[in-house]
Amino acid sequence: MAFGFGPQQMGYDRAITVFSPEGKLYQVEYAFEAVKRGWSTIGMKCKEGVLIAVERKKLQNLIDLKHLEKIFVVDDHIMTSFAGLAADGRILVDIAREVALRHRFLYDEPPTVEYVAKVISDVKQAYTQHAGVRPFGVALIFAGVDEFGPQVFMTEPSGQYMSYYAAVIGQNQSQISEYLEGRYNYDMSLDDAIVLALKALMSVGAEEVSPENYEIGIVRADERKVRKLTEEEVAKYLERAKA
Amino acid sequence: MAFGFGPQQMGYDRAITVFSPEGKLYQVEYAFEAVKRGWSTIGMKCKEGVLIAVERKKLQNLIDLKHLEKIFVVDDHIMTSFAGLAADGRILVDIAREVALRHRFLYDEPPTVEYVAKVISDVKQAYTQHAGVRPFGVALIFAGVDEFGPQVFMTEPSGQYMSYYAAVIGQNQSQISEYLEGRYNYDMSLDDAIVLALKALMSVGAEEVSPENYEIGIVRADERKVRKLTEEEVAKYLERAKA
Amino acid sequence: MAFGFGPQQMGYDRAITVFSPEGKLYQVEYAFEAVKRGWSTIGMKCKEGVLIAVERKKLQNLIDLKHLEKIFVVDDHIMTSFAGLAADGRILVDIAREVALRHRFLYDEPPTVEYVAKVISDVKQAYTQHAGVRPFGVALIFAGVDEFGPQVFMTEPSGQYMSYYAAVIGQNQSQISEYLEGRYNYDMSLDDAIVLALKALMSVGAEEVSPENYEIGIVRADERKVRKLTEEEVAKYLERAKA
Amino acid sequence: MAFGFGPQQMGYDRAITVFSPEGKLYQVEYAFEAVKRGWSTIGMKCKEGVLIAVERKKLQNLIDLKHLEKIFVVDDHIMTSFAGLAADGRILVDIAREVALRHRFLYDEPPTVEYVAKVISDVKQAYTQHAGVRPFGVALIFAGVDEFGPQVFMTEPSGQYMSYYAAVIGQNQSQISEYLEGRYNYDMSLDDAIVLALKALMSVGAEEVSPENYEIGIVRADERKVRKLTEEEVAKYLERAKA
Amino acid sequence: MAFGFGPQQMGYDRAITVFSPEGKLYQVEYAFEAVKRGWSTIGMKCKEGVLIAVERKKLQNLIDLKHLEKIFVVDDHIMTSFAGLAADGRILVDIAREVALRHRFLYDEPPTVEYVAKVISDVKQAYTQHAGVRPFGVALIFAGVDEFGPQVFMTEPSGQYMSYYAAVIGQNQSQISEYLEGRYNYDMSLDDAIVLALKALMSVGAEEVSPENYEIGIVRADERKVRKLTEEEVAKYLERAKA
Amino acid sequence: MAFGFGPQQMGYDRAITVFSPEGKLYQVEYAFEAVKRGWSTIGMKCKEGVLIAVERKKLQNLIDLKHLEKIFVVDDHIMTSFAGLAADGRILVDIAREVALRHRFLYDEPPTVEYVAKVISDVKQAYTQHAGVRPFGVALIFAGVDEFGPQVFMTEPSGQYMSYYAAVIGQNQSQISEYLEGRYNYDMSLDDAIVLALKALMSVGAEEVSPENYEIGIVRADERKVRKLTEEEVAKYLERAKA
Amino acid sequence: MAFGFGPQQMGYDRAITVFSPEGKLYQVEYAFEAVKRGWSTIGMKCKEGVLIAVERKKLQNLIDLKHLEKIFVVDDHIMTSFAGLAADGRILVDIAREVALRHRFLYDEPPTVEYVAKVISDVKQAYTQHAGVRPFGVALIFAGVDEFGPQVFMTEPSGQYMSYYAAVIGQNQSQISEYLEGRYNYDMSLDDAIVLALKALMSVGAEEVSPENYEIGIVRADERKVRKLTEEEVAKYLERAKA
Repeated sequence: MAFGFGPQQMGYDRAITVFSPEGKLYQVEYAFEAVKRGWSTIGMKCKEGVLIAVERKKLQNLIDLKHLEKIFVVDDHIMTSFAGLAADGRILVDIAREVALRHRFLYDEPPTVEYVAKVISDVKQAYTQHAGVRPFGVALIFAGVDEFGPQVFMTEPSGQYMSYYAAVIGQNQSQISEYLEGRYNYDMSLDDAIVLALKALMSVGAEEVSPENYEIGIVRADERKVRKLTEEEVAKYLERAKA
Repeated sequence: MAFGFGPQQMGYDRAITVFSPEGKLYQVEYAFEAVKRGWSTIGMKCKEGVLIAVERKKLQNLIDLKHLEKIFVVDDHIMTSFAGLAADGRILVDIAREVALRHRFLYDEPPTVEYVAKVISDVKQAYTQHAGVRPFGVALIFAGVDEFGPQVFMTEPSGQYMSYYAAVIGQNQSQISEYLEGRYNYDMSLDDAIVLALKALMSVGAEEVSPENYEIGIVRADERKVRKLTEEEVAKYLERAKA
Repeated sequence: MAFGFGPQQMGYDRAITVFSPEGKLYQVEYAFEAVKRGWSTIGMKCKEGVLIAVERKKLQNLIDLKHLEKIFVVDDHIMTSFAGLAADGRILVDIAREVALRHRFLYDEPPTVEYVAKVISDVKQAYTQHAGVRPFGVALIFAGVDEFGPQVFMTEPSGQYMSYYAAVIGQNQSQISEYLEGRYNYDMSLDDAIVLALKALMSVGAEEVSPENYEIGIVRADERKVRKLTEEEVAKYLERAKA
Repeated sequence: MAFGFGPQQMGYDRAITVFSPEGKLYQVEYAFEAVKRGWSTIGMKCKEGVLIAVERKKLQNLIDLKHLEKIFVVDDHIMTSFAGLAADGRILVDIAREVALRHRFLYDEPPTVEYVAKVISDVKQAYTQHAGVRPFGVALIFAGVDEFGPQVFMTEPSGQYMSYYAAVIGQNQSQISEYLEGRYNYDMSLDDAIVLALKALMSVGAEEVSPENYEIGIVRADERKVRKLTEEEVAKYLERAKA
Repeated sequence: MAFGFGPQQMGYDRAITVFSPEGKLYQVEYAFEAVKRGWSTIGMKCKEGVLIAVERKKLQNLIDLKHLEKIFVVDDHIMTSFAGLAADGRILVDIAREVALRHRFLYDEPPTVEYVAKVISDVKQAYTQHAGVRPFGVALIFAGVDEFGPQVFMTEPSGQYMSYYAAVIGQNQSQISEYLEGRYNYDMSLDDAIVLALKALMSVGAEEVSPENYEIGIVRADERKVRKLTEEEVAKYLERAKA
Repeated sequence: MAFGFGPQQMGYDRAITVFSPEGKLYQVEYAFEAVKRGWSTIGMKCKEGVLIAVERKKLQNLIDLKHLEKIFVVDDHIMTSFAGLAADGRILVDIAREVALRHRFLYDEPPTVEYVAKVISDVKQAYTQHAGVRPFGVALIFAGVDEFGPQVFMTEPSGQYMSYYAAVIGQNQSQISEYLEGRYNYDMSLDDAIVLALKALMSVGAEEVSPENYEIGIVRADERKVRKLTEEEVAKYLERAKA
Repeated sequence: MAFGFGPQQMGYDRAITVFSPEGKLYQVEYAFEAVKRGWSTIGMKCKEGVLIAVERKKLQNLIDLKHLEKIFVVDDHIMTSFAGLAADGRILVDIAREVALRHRFLYDEPPTVEYVAKVISDVKQAYTQHAGVRPFGVALIFAGVDEFGPQVFMTEPSGQYMSYYAAVIGQNQSQISEYLEGRYNYDMSLDDAIVLALKALMSVGAEEVSPENYEIGIVRADERKVRKLTEEEVAKYLERAKA
């Protein structure tokens, strides 16, 4: 590629919101690369509820991990996590919370999980079609339980979103997905689902794992209330996962 | 093309809303490439009504296909489907629904199929003529029955739209069109039309097909009401199509 | 032209609304190329009235030609047709109709043909002088009968317009013009003018022609009312033209 | 010019409203090239009044020359003509008429010829200094009689304007000017001035000339009223000019 | 400089309002080149008053020099002249007049010469710091007599202005300045100053000079009133200058 | 890299708010380089409170160091310091103060340290996603004691922020962090923490150190009040650190 | 550097408000080059007050130096001078005066010197972070006496400002600073400070110096009132400096 005329060099991937000859929006595809460098995150649903499990990579010792929240409560019954540019994710989480609040205020009832995922996706789409902005460099998983039961939605930087039994974002996304595909079962208990998620995350990890490396949030179908597992609870599940 | 001065390299295809020396808008043509990578979709009309049939490609097992709706109700009597960038399509479907609603509100009567197709096309055209935005990377089929009978319109990324007996968008568009051209007949029954649509989709598909691979919506001329076929109904038609 | 420094490659033709060293606006000239790829269209006037005749090329069988209107009523006494980008043309036709309506509303009398042609041309000019937009890629023929008698105006992408005895736009524009120049006569009957227009269109066509290949609109000087010929009428004139 | 680094290729002439190292605004100079391709036009004043004479080149026979007005009435006592981009010229003529109207409305008296020329020139200047627009590609001659006597002003694309005894724009500008310089005399009669203008236009023309090739407008000092010569009048003057 | 990477080719001189590595604003420096091509103009003050003298180059005979005013009255006691782009200069002269008028309206007293020069310079500065516009391509000399005595200010395209005993702009600026430096004396009479200015202009001129080649404006310290010299007066001074 | 097509040369790092193929925002990464050239700064928390310690490099003798404040009071209980572009930092410090003030005004209670850090980070994120601005070239450390105890947050140019036991920004960031990692202990006294911070700064410094080279601010957990150490106090701690 | 890929050629220094890979804002650094070409200017404080001393280079004889003020009164007790683009400096001086006036109006007390320097620096910073403008090409020294005693602040084009015992801007900045560093003493008398400033300016000057080559402003600590030295006073100090 001595003279630099491969597809990347032609400029299609540089200008915002421009189609390449193959009909691709490179800026959006590159934004997805930021997602792929994020921490591995799984959102899963089963008959009994939903979970989000995030692997917290070892960081510099001087960082206070207690404050390094990776799972965010959007509404009583909806939680979210993201992979990609941290600051972009924070902004969208804030918007999601506002969206939920406004929904309750306007309609006097909680939003569905899909409603929140859709509004965030609409914001993302707008950032892929207009000049003067760049796309958001994050994928978000919204998980919760609403009138339609347990729900997991994943939104991409393009503004596309889909419903998942088990959605994976961040590093090793394809290996973890593959691991899950053969073992996942909608009818398993939430306890088993948590163990499966931990096993899937461990399947690609080389480091010694310990409870503080995982952050897990759940919403039980019968409670419809986001709850974060304590380090002790995570430890118990980890025991089972390692077995 | 070692030194890169073919038509694509001259920049006519890079800047938004600019004519090339041949009078082409490359951005619009590239947007059509995104359409060609979408799932194969057929909109068809016959004396008895209209149908839209979409082939749902096999996706990752972990995606919840129940939520992966590809045919959208715009109004009681109008449905739509699209091929191309999913997020772009969703935005335009939302606009179409608003357009229909506002029409009913203002004139106290349902919009015609063409009215909705035209407004969406006007939005698309504007996105091809002004800087600061990119064209929409989707083609939409609007199908329905109104005072003028069964109607199928297809709108392109350029903002052009036409009336069709049978419109095809997405992968293998030309082969499927060719398959239909010899076999289509306006006077056939809606049942036969559904079977023909399935046959046409199967004519290019290599995979094992099963009912969950197809989503079919219909509007009968005598009912003027969008209805999605159940998986059982799809299975029955598929039986006939395979025969 | 191995290293690409001919006039097109210098960039004068790429940026919007910029003069080349020869004082040309290349974007406008390129927009005209889109016009030249449109369907051949003739607007003609004679003592007895005006006509617009459009050759409808054979398209995919699955397109419903009944809906493929190419001649549009602007006001009772004015019709228009265009060659070039279909979506651009539709937008300008809509504007022309609004212009006519507003004129009637404000002055309580029908607009002249030139008035409508001029307003549309002013819109086109603005799109050639300001950044952030591209020129309109269509030429329109406005034909009608007003207080000044039969009128035919043609507006170019540049915003220039002129009055014509017989205006030709679209494919084979120069051959058809040449054919007409020797045979046209203002004093011929409208019937003869229709036959001449069909002959001119046939003079460059290779395909088997049949009535559904032509769309013809007329305004008789004594009626001042746009009327589209039926397929039967077209067939009769075609008979004479082939003779 | 194999590698393209002459002055034009350096980009000074491409961007709008940018100075070249020699202090030139190339866009403005290029706009003047559009003027030089326009039809030859003369504005002249003498003791008895003013005239504008335009040579109408032979055009396609199918154009209706009756509508091809080249001399426009701005106000009772002021007329104008332009060379360059027709659509640009039309826009400025419209503005000139509005300017005159508004002057009468505000001050209850007719504007001077210079007042109208100056306002139009101010508009032109603004289009050479701000980004987002291109300069106007026309030169206009304003001719009329006001309280200061017979007046002829010519405005350039740069927004510069000057008072002339005899101003020439369009094709063969310099040859025609040269022809006039030796023969012009302010004290000649308006009749003689018309003949001189025709002779000057004929001095560079190769075609057979006939009255319909010329459009002539005059304002007599004692009438202060624009009047277009009839074809018969033109014929008479032409006779004398050929003699 | 075959491959074009000297300072001009690097782009510092092309983009508006951008510093070069040496801290220069090339657009402003290029604008000054337009000034250097203007007609030679001198503004001078002495104990008895101020003068502006402009050399009117021989132009095409057909231009009506009577209208070619080069010295403009800004207020009773202030006059101005400029070198550079004529249309830019006219715009700034208009602004200067408005500024003077508004000053009288707001404060009920005449503006000082410096006040007017400063406001015009502020406008110029703004046009060198913001994108979307180009600098003004003119230098102006403001000369007048106010409460502080005789004043001559010269404003550059950069927006810088200074007070001068004798300011020179336009062609041969440095030679004329040099001529004046050795001979100027603040205590000379205004008559002698006029003769000196004419001599300075003649010192670089090759053409036969005659009174109509010069335009001279003066403001006497005891009158504080702008007055243009008549052709007869100019002739008398010219006589003395030639002696 | 003779022909300049390495990643930096492809333009991904030049345009604002654009993703590179690897999903990076180069402008943001380059902004971090400005941070790395700032003065070494440490923010640390321990059971007894928080501290910020800044090493003031020797500057020109003529600078009045008394005015060279590097630690800023944001609110009674919150202080901040930054590394990077001084003017950018000052602007953000001003915003932080306003944010704190407004919080008190609206909610009648002091803001938490995280609240202030988050708002500043949101501002920073916006400057990385929109065109027309550049990212802020500063990292800030916010340290204070609030209802949740001692808090140290560091915000990056990207808009990301995290909670730290000990955060380091500026020159030698990684060496200083490394030095701290082995020696830091949350349970040490604030006195010991100050000595540790000084030792860490000295560990990379070559210059003779004296008290005026350090600026130290503290907030004791029991006081919740920002206090800057006097030169005498700094001297005492320095003594201990050198021991 | 035949193919032009050194740092300057990569474009980092051309676009406004963009970081280079080293985290530098080249436009700001280039603006500083304009400062370095300004006249040498010293601001100094001592126990007894502050001074600004400017060396007025010999200019063309025809410039009226009486009007060439280089030290500007901002408020009774604050003066300023600048080096760099004269027009930019004038604009900022005007803003500084407005800032001071508004402060008095709002708070009914004089602004501190730092307050004025900070507001001007905030304006400068904004011009380095937003597109569509260029940075200001001037450094300003603000000197005065306020409630905190004698103050000298210098603001850079970046928007950074610092407090100085003795600040130097303009030509030979580093040599003059070096000269001062060894000899400056805060406790010297204002008389001695003036002599030192003159000596420092003379230390780099080659020209014959005379009183009119210097402009000196002072504010005595006990008077808090800006005063410009007369030519006689300057002469006396110069005598001492030459001794």
